[in-house]
Amino acid sequence: MPPPPDVTDLRLDAARKCVSAHGLDVLLVSSPVHLAYLFGLRASAGLALVHREGATLVVDARYQDRAAGIAAAAARVDLRQVRLGRSYEETAAEALTDLGASRVGLEADHVTVARAAALRRVSTGAVEWVDTSGLVERLRMVKDPWELGRLREAGGRLAEVAACILPKVSSGCTERQVAWEVELALHAAGFEKPAFDTIVASGPHGASPHHRAGDRVLADGDLVVVDFGGVFDGYAVDMTRTVALGAVSADARRWCRAVGEAQRAAVAAARSGVLPSAVDGAARGVLDEAGLGQWFVHSTGHGLGLEVHERPTIGPRGDVDGPLAAGMVFTVEPGVYVPGAGGVRIEDDVVVTDAGVERLTGAPPAIEAHEF
Amino acid sequence: MPPPPDVTDLRLDAARKCVSAHGLDVLLVSSPVHLAYLFGLRASAGLALVHREGATLVVDARYQDRAAGIAAAAARVDLRQVRLGRSYEETAAEALTDLGASRVGLEADHVTVARAAALRRVSTGAVEWVDTSGLVERLRMVKDPWELGRLREAGGRLAEVAACILPKVSSGCTERQVAWEVELALHAAGFEKPAFDTIVASGPHGASPHHRAGDRVLADGDLVVVDFGGVFDGYAVDMTRTVALGAVSADARRWCRAVGEAQRAAVAAARSGVLPSAVDGAARGVLDEAGLGQWFVHSTGHGLGLEVHERPTIGPRGDVDGPLAAGMVFTVEPGVYVPGAGGVRIEDDVVVTDAGVERLTGAPPAIEAHEF
Repeated sequence: MPPPPDVTDLRLDAARKCVSAHGLDVLLVSSPVHLAYLFGLRASAGLALVHREGATLVVDARYQDRAAGIAAAAARVDLRQVRLGRSYEETAAEALTDLGASRVGLEADHVTVARAAALRRVSTGAVEWVDTSGLVERLRMVKDPWELGRLREAGGRLAEVAACILPKVSSGCTERQVAWEVELALHAAGFEKPAFDTIVASGPHGASPHHRAGDRVLADGDLVVVDFGGVFDGYAVDMTRTVALGAVSADARRWCRAVGEAQRAAVAAARSGVLPSAVDGAARGVLDEAGLGQWFVHSTGHGLGLEVHERPTIGPRGDVDGPLAAGMVFTVEPGVYVPGAGGVRIEDDVVVTDAGVERLTGAPPAIEAHEF
Repeated sequence: MPPPPDVTDLRLDAARKCVSAHGLDVLLVSSPVHLAYLFGLRASAGLALVHREGATLVVDARYQDRAAGIAAAAARVDLRQVRLGRSYEETAAEALTDLGASRVGLEADHVTVARAAALRRVSTGAVEWVDTSGLVERLRMVKDPWELGRLREAGGRLAEVAACILPKVSSGCTERQVAWEVELALHAAGFEKPAFDTIVASGPHGASPHHRAGDRVLADGDLVVVDFGGVFDGYAVDMTRTVALGAVSADARRWCRAVGEAQRAAVAAARSGVLPSAVDGAARGVLDEAGLGQWFVHSTGHGLGLEVHERPTIGPRGDVDGPLAAGMVFTVEPGVYVPGAGGVRIEDDVVVTDAGVERLTGAPPAIEAHEF
């Protein structure tokens, strides 16, 4: 289900105002994710010229039909096709000339050095290129009601996937088999596809936060980190549980309890107006106090939306986008990774409200059970 | 199965020579695909500094274990970790200072404008940054024997997937159901994952080359384009068949025959020393002659390897990398897309030899059957 035109029209309005507020005539949008956000266009290639009055979509023949449908339904969007044998850069430069654009913003976080050089080469001297950063990303950080509806639905379904697959994590099966069970459950729950390669990290493999599911056979005494996500109507949700198989060591139980407490502390700290670093600090403080801080080697969370990693970053360096605001959606996923021994991570997704957060992926795990 | 260290050592040797031949002290490798190619490192982040004597891998804590294993097994590779709170750019700049590097190549096709600016900001005045293009890509174009082994195995398995799923493409099921059958068959055939979102474009949807599988119910009289691929040991293969359901129109039969002939012509034209544009021209000539040239709106093929789209491009503008050479692997996939009516595409994968090409995805489809 793509976003309805009235939803994307509002997003484009916000982008147009942003273009104007930054003193630009045009923002050249080159991130495919931004094309999906502003226009509902899902394509592997494409550009858009967002100007003060509307936007021009630039696509090649593969996406002509799709883009024509979008332009017909949207307010203020027209279309320009890249002809076979012409480049995107040449076509965009022609459109800029027709628009009489002078100050043109480039998405510096998405445009490669080579594409920037090509654009400079083919555009007329009338164009002054301006590096911009985060213009559309910052619009995307606060989800609109339609997006929150999609993310709530997706989060609820992902919690069902967890309930379905965690009992199947058992001694004797391989990491890869568990990962495939996750993919079957994601499909059965109505997800389009996994949001990323499912992580199943058992025993010592748990010490590697981004381990790839392999041929290791799960055994009693293992902690098994299962990190999985799905894409639903284009939106990504992401969840991690750690399963204790049989009798695990006293150390392992201690890590699980501490990570569970760290997650609760971070969730409790999050609300509108709080800095991301403070949420990260809440989790990190619990793990420091438990003497495990040195093993918490990543940030506490990341934004979710059209991408599985987007702004804001919930980490020690996460305050570049300012304090949290109602409507932001992110993961809370502290972890402990002890080289040679194993690891624990617990991850849920939340949306910020004025009073605190709403959990999207159901209740927190019961630390008393063997699933964390 | 990652490439064995002696295979990646040879690739790194070639890259080191390339660095030297381009008058560079260091090439800063930033494409994750290039890290997989040169080091066997599969990670969502990471940098490498390839210099004349060896290379330094730069990774954050998430990939420390994996990278340490690689550095231990490889000749001439050492490791530098990005500490929490530090950036990749800062860490790379420190490594450049320690290497005493002066002329440092940047991968202009992969580095964003923002990252290039950050690197310039944090590196010392001793570093002169040089834009480079295609250095590692050109090494990757000609596959080494280990890669050809993986691609042959993958191609054979993909042909089995085709044999398994094409009989299931039938009236009454939805595009999405067919796409899921493809994914189940890919898993059963031992693929890690689909190489891209499976395309199932039925009836009028076939006119859109990159249609996404949706809820349309397949019906008698449809042409159904099924385009699917899988990743095997990290290598992507890609195949398309068009299924005619029941009695299709005389036009549809004509399109299928013409596209089949165009594919055979392109395959017959390909061999070491021939320009990619000549292979494209062979397919395009057949379709032009059939009066269908205007509906063939994309290039004839694309390279395959660690990416599902890589060099060389087999198209009208595909000669930037020179003539075909033995060991290059690419798709041959002419198509016809008639707006409002439907489409046809037939795609196989080949490896270039001195005498012609070797087909990786089995025999060409039997135009006489209802599968093309």
